[in-house]
Amino acid sequence: MSDEIVKQIEEQGAEVRRLKGDKASTDNAKTEAIQKLLALKLAYKEATGQDYAAPNARQAKPKQAPKPQKPEVKKHTLLGVGTKKDDNYSEWYSEVITKAEMIEYYDVSGCYVLRPWSYAVWESIQEFFDSGIKKLGVKNCYFPMFVSNAALEREKTHIADFAPEVAWVTRAGNSDMAEPIAIRPTSETVMYPSYKKWVQSHRDLPIKLNQWCNVVRWEFKHPTPFLRTREFLWQEGHTAYANPADAEKEVFQILDLYAGVYNDLLAIPVVKGRKSEKEKFAGGDFTTTVEAYVACNGRGIQGATSHHLGQNFSKMFDISYEDPSKDGERAYAWQNSWGLSTRSIGAMIMVHGDDKGLVLPPRVAAVQVIVVPVGFKTENKDSLFDAVDKVTKELVAGGVKAEHDLRENYNAGWKFNHWELKGVPIRFEVGPNDLAKKQVTAVIRHNGEKKQVSMDGIVASVKTLLDEIHTQMYNKALAQRDAHLKTTTDIEEFKKHLDEKCIILSPFCGLPECEEKIKNASTREDGEGAQMGAKTLCIPLEQPKQALPSKCLFPSCTEKAKAFALFGRSY
Amino acid sequence: MSDEIVKQIEEQGAEVRRLKGDKASTDNAKTEAIQKLLALKLAYKEATGQDYAAPNARQAKPKQAPKPQKPEVKKHTLLGVGTKKDDNYSEWYSEVITKAEMIEYYDVSGCYVLRPWSYAVWESIQEFFDSGIKKLGVKNCYFPMFVSNAALEREKTHIADFAPEVAWVTRAGNSDMAEPIAIRPTSETVMYPSYKKWVQSHRDLPIKLNQWCNVVRWEFKHPTPFLRTREFLWQEGHTAYANPADAEKEVFQILDLYAGVYNDLLAIPVVKGRKSEKEKFAGGDFTTTVEAYVACNGRGIQGATSHHLGQNFSKMFDISYEDPSKDGERAYAWQNSWGLSTRSIGAMIMVHGDDKGLVLPPRVAAVQVIVVPVGFKTENKDSLFDAVDKVTKELVAGGVKAEHDLRENYNAGWKFNHWELKGVPIRFEVGPNDLAKKQVTAVIRHNGEKKQVSMDGIVASVKTLLDEIHTQMYNKALAQRDAHLKTTTDIEEFKKHLDEKCIILSPFCGLPECEEKIKNASTREDGEGAQMGAKTLCIPLEQPKQALPSKCLFPSCTEKAKAFALFGRSY
Repeated sequence: MSDEIVKQIEEQGAEVRRLKGDKASTDNAKTEAIQKLLALKLAYKEATGQDYAAPNARQAKPKQAPKPQKPEVKKHTLLGVGTKKDDNYSEWYSEVITKAEMIEYYDVSGCYVLRPWSYAVWESIQEFFDSGIKKLGVKNCYFPMFVSNAALEREKTHIADFAPEVAWVTRAGNSDMAEPIAIRPTSETVMYPSYKKWVQSHRDLPIKLNQWCNVVRWEFKHPTPFLRTREFLWQEGHTAYANPADAEKEVFQILDLYAGVYNDLLAIPVVKGRKSEKEKFAGGDFTTTVEAYVACNGRGIQGATSHHLGQNFSKMFDISYEDPSKDGERAYAWQNSWGLSTRSIGAMIMVHGDDKGLVLPPRVAAVQVIVVPVGFKTENKDSLFDAVDKVTKELVAGGVKAEHDLRENYNAGWKFNHWELKGVPIRFEVGPNDLAKKQVTAVIRHNGEKKQVSMDGIVASVKTLLDEIHTQMYNKALAQRDAHLKTTTDIEEFKKHLDEKCIILSPFCGLPECEEKIKNASTREDGEGAQMGAKTLCIPLEQPKQALPSKCLFPSCTEKAKAFALFGRSY
Repeated sequence: MSDEIVKQIEEQGAEVRRLKGDKASTDNAKTEAIQKLLALKLAYKEATGQDYAAPNARQAKPKQAPKPQKPEVKKHTLLGVGTKKDDNYSEWYSEVITKAEMIEYYDVSGCYVLRPWSYAVWESIQEFFDSGIKKLGVKNCYFPMFVSNAALEREKTHIADFAPEVAWVTRAGNSDMAEPIAIRPTSETVMYPSYKKWVQSHRDLPIKLNQWCNVVRWEFKHPTPFLRTREFLWQEGHTAYANPADAEKEVFQILDLYAGVYNDLLAIPVVKGRKSEKEKFAGGDFTTTVEAYVACNGRGIQGATSHHLGQNFSKMFDISYEDPSKDGERAYAWQNSWGLSTRSIGAMIMVHGDDKGLVLPPRVAAVQVIVVPVGFKTENKDSLFDAVDKVTKELVAGGVKAEHDLRENYNAGWKFNHWELKGVPIRFEVGPNDLAKKQVTAVIRHNGEKKQVSMDGIVASVKTLLDEIHTQMYNKALAQRDAHLKTTTDIEEFKKHLDEKCIILSPFCGLPECEEKIKNASTREDGEGAQMGAKTLCIPLEQPKQALPSKCLFPSCTEKAKAFALFGRSY
């Protein structure tokens, strides 16, 4: 299998080189040939788990000419993304995350390396959310990653949902363990036996804990970096209250913080809502969610969820105390759990990225401004480089994440492409003319606009500019989302909208059976393979202004509609 | 087995109750009886994995009298630690970590819950060290926790060291995996295949990455919370350089940061040194370490290690590039790895804790000042509580981690004990007299001193006080360490010092065989069970001023001494 692919890669590689050398070949032909080559390399990777390496790529070349003494300047070649987002978003995504140095592939299937460029996004999210929950009185802690089978199976509905994906440790060194131990897919069953110990009286409540950790869900569906991975990073909050009103209030406070992560950091509009009975967290009372929209494939994506568990887990784990109001009776705690994962980074890439590569929202960018010297010659290089260094330092001192690119073995064009591919929000070009006018030329990543920025008060100008970029990116994503947000009561129109990459608000009875029927009815089988059916993304907290029809979307459903639900194909 | 223990616990419990009710019984008798009871409970936990719970402890009491309307005030009872540190440090440690709410026990052996009170210490350490390495240009990232067998076994010396402790995942859901997958015991073999991909030219170096994560070492020795656990949290830095001088420089920069964590945060003096050949990291060139001293048992404890790996791993993993200076040859990267774990929290507890419980160094304390109202009556309660609230808020606004304890169901004495047990560095008592004099009474945890602090400029006063406390705690630990730091060239004197809980500087040839002989010679078998022999803690970077004798400590050794090594019994 892989031998066959290797042969094809070699042939296609030769074809690409031929086209590149042939002045008569069109750009289109070149792009197509490159895309085919990349697709073959991906197929190779899928088959072998390894990146394809040309046979001679890492061997020393014999009898090479001596190295030139001056640094070798790379020409501006086809450095960027070979696939257009609208042509093949899945291929585009793979290219962007690797070329922008977000992800490195790994030899355990479904696991990926988060490189500093993506991990920095996660650090920004952590900082924002962590300070938000600490203001609510939540404290961080760390529970073991291992769960005994006995604890794991305590809540039946819950474990039924997770059991098929649980990874089991059965051996240590060369010894088989007496009993297999599970790796947490989530930590309800890890944490709640301790909660039972800690709650002896109503005064021991509330308990408000959070942990930042890794979890493992050994899914067998096709994995996708960030979006569906077997190990991922997240935070999980677990709280317990003496009364349900306090618990429910917190569910929505946390949901607002999650909405803040998307709106205020990632520049992604989200719909806040409740999950349907079919889609809610197994074992909980109700699940709230923030749902984003990905235009390139028309799918909804769950952004984060905040669950009210009611008393279900507290009864299973006996988190209880003597009821002060009812003599001799036990009162059970009211619980929540809530989580946000590195999947959010995948949503960010999908929503904002373009044909040039990644587009980072300014508030999570590891580098917000990249400063590049341009148009210099030997005689003015030193003064220009000094100016670049000075402006960069001024920005950093002012709290802007700025870096410069003074490498001499790359030309300016190559650098422009490189930092555009990596999605840096603002590029400063500093040339002799700029210097003479005491200004820099700013180029905005997400819309390509150029503007002059005076060196005077540059920190304040940049901060304003970063905020403007954030707002523009948010508004662009919002306009795109709203253009694909339809309302209908008719199942045929519903299916048509769905195939036009829309998400749809429709009246819905709320029953799991009916949701299943809508899903089946909207599954489309065509030449490209089955298109998944629609499911409810959520029942939006803010309902459409129009009156709710009495009938549910599904034609033969005889139940009354309870609310407008937001439907869509989904991750 | 556990039935037998339950019977003994019940009998011993009855005895404790009898002694407590018997005015003629001595304190000594009570303490002994309580210790025996606790030991039985620990034995029960060891045998069953569960905390012992009295049969009626969690059942509602039938026909209870109606609850009193006013809050129930708990009497000042035996709330504190039942075991003296010097009597039985191991039991004392178990009591302190659980009663001070640092640790909760867990039903997977060798795994423990880090409660917010201990996790906050870890967060302080993270903040300090993370900002330190970022200044050195290190970036955070995240690599998978799973390792394929192929990658794990690439470096033979390394894996030989870790293989017996590796945990293996062999099953997902109900399916056996095609090949077992290991959980990282450390991430050299996880990360370096990526480093190989990233290094194509000398311009791709240096690579400076760090991750904060969990690792698993399934040890079969008796586990101890923080100090020896099967899962623990740490940071691991992994860097690669084009030349060895840069790499070696970094080894010591990191070592200085580690010394900073101990000296400047945890108030623990450490000796910086190199590990002997026998004790160094398997597969590396040399290991540097910071070593602390625990007085209560006279043991050395490794604080953190910074390894220079040389080119050993880069050759195994082919992290190489075409050598620009030698045509046609490959140059291999020079690598370091370095790690600091939650074990540091265990060292902190052992070094500073006392018979009243935990003593937190001010810079890592989740609460630095606890404010407690005292001596109030119904008529002045409101004004006093207002004053307590006001001073607490002022401290918090000034950047001091302050909280108040306004609970009315506990009396002041109970609160004093409670917060002393938890190790809060400063207690503020605010009573009517203090209020009249516009002052508070400060009680210092580590030495019990009382002093009046004026409300005017209280933030600045407290900050100065916290710094003084830090210095005093450090100096106390230093004096204790230095009183137990001996120098000798004579093996008999060496053994005597060792049994007097000392660590010892002695001339040493450096050979592993000789270190093994010294260890065997200093192993002591007595009625209390074998006392482990001494090993080298490190070869201190700063050598004693006296001239190095030519002869190695071990009498029959014919090698020349290379340096003074620091020996001791060790964790």
